[in-house]
Amino acid sequence: MTTSRTRLSSEERRSQLLDLGVRLFAKRSLSEISIDLLAEAAGISRGLLYHYFGGLAGFQEAVVRRAADDLIARTAPPETGDPLERLAASMEAYVDFVDENYEGYLSLMTGAKSGNETLHRLYDEARSALIDRIFVSDAGTLLPDSPAARLLVRGWAALAEEMVLEWKRDGSISRAELLTLVTGALPDLASGLVR
Amino acid sequence: MTTSRTRLSSEERRSQLLDLGVRLFAKRSLSEISIDLLAEAAGISRGLLYHYFGGLAGFQEAVVRRAADDLIARTAPPETGDPLERLAASMEAYVDFVDENYEGYLSLMTGAKSGNETLHRLYDEARSALIDRIFVSDAGTLLPDSPAARLLVRGWAALAEEMVLEWKRDGSISRAELLTLVTGALPDLASGLVR
Repeated sequence: MTTSRTRLSSEERRSQLLDLGVRLFAKRSLSEISIDLLAEAAGISRGLLYHYFGGLAGFQEAVVRRAADDLIARTAPPETGDPLERLAASMEAYVDFVDENYEGYLSLMTGAKSGNETLHRLYDEARSALIDRIFVSDAGTLLPDSPAARLLVRGWAALAEEMVLEWKRDGSISRAELLTLVTGALPDLASGLVR
Repeated sequence: MTTSRTRLSSEERRSQLLDLGVRLFAKRSLSEISIDLLAEAAGISRGLLYHYFGGLAGFQEAVVRRAADDLIARTAPPETGDPLERLAASMEAYVDFVDENYEGYLSLMTGAKSGNETLHRLYDEARSALIDRIFVSDAGTLLPDSPAARLLVRGWAALAEEMVLEWKRDGSISRAELLTLVTGALPDLASGLVR
């Protein structure tokens, strides 16, 4: 019992540190999450980071992974309902996630595209999970699965990412208009597959 | 006469160096265009670079600017014809450009997104020129000009970029299929503006 309870506390402690990292990451770029910041803002020492994550890089990677898992979980579509309504719910959660985690999300994308291999892998895994969901969870109701459809959905994901980030910077249309455009874009694009 | 002829030769020499840089850039990332490579591959010395471009960074920037100008010029749509046919011709030129200049194009995008300010500015200028063209040259025939339409066309540009780069890496559909999808995507997306 004692061993098991100790192990649980240790996992809980690790998880608490990660939660804290994710909260810091929401408003900061990854490179701003330094040993000094962690010590100052959260009383996390270098020794603690080494104990739980093998160091700062391990901590940063675990934070990004946790943030990516949060994104995937939060954007999970409802299990029932019309495919388009389920997509709309998923996109609404995506827009809210980017809105709340803008700095961290931007730094993840920037890092992934600038050739940081770990960030690129995590970014790619998250995006693949989101793209696969379109084909798996809706079993071809929105689009039939084919190489052309996969390419188109990848393009749609890039479109959604660009539009949401630009909407955050620019804000010239409402959140509701953005959601209508981004969600409606997928079935609109799908109509190109049958030409 | 002598002065004028000398000045012309100097401009021609500068232009020749740029052409060479653009050819090297097509198959290499920007960071691979080093003083050593230029000396070895083209007999361009450090002194010559300083004379014409103020140094390597100035040369690299001028090469990217020339490549971006080439892209804008090559993708200019024909002056007459149906708007969709003109868009198709423009996209065909875009796909060919990326195909021929893949390494350089990828490194420009990577550099622009990783926070290199000069590359970001050049990339943004080129993309804005391509996006403006949709509204200016066709005077609203494909889409009416509005903040929502501008945002959607920006998203479409990201979609096109992603699809063409992924097509280069993956190649699971034909060039003709890619062109049909990427070109048709714009009017398909435009139908979302009237909802």
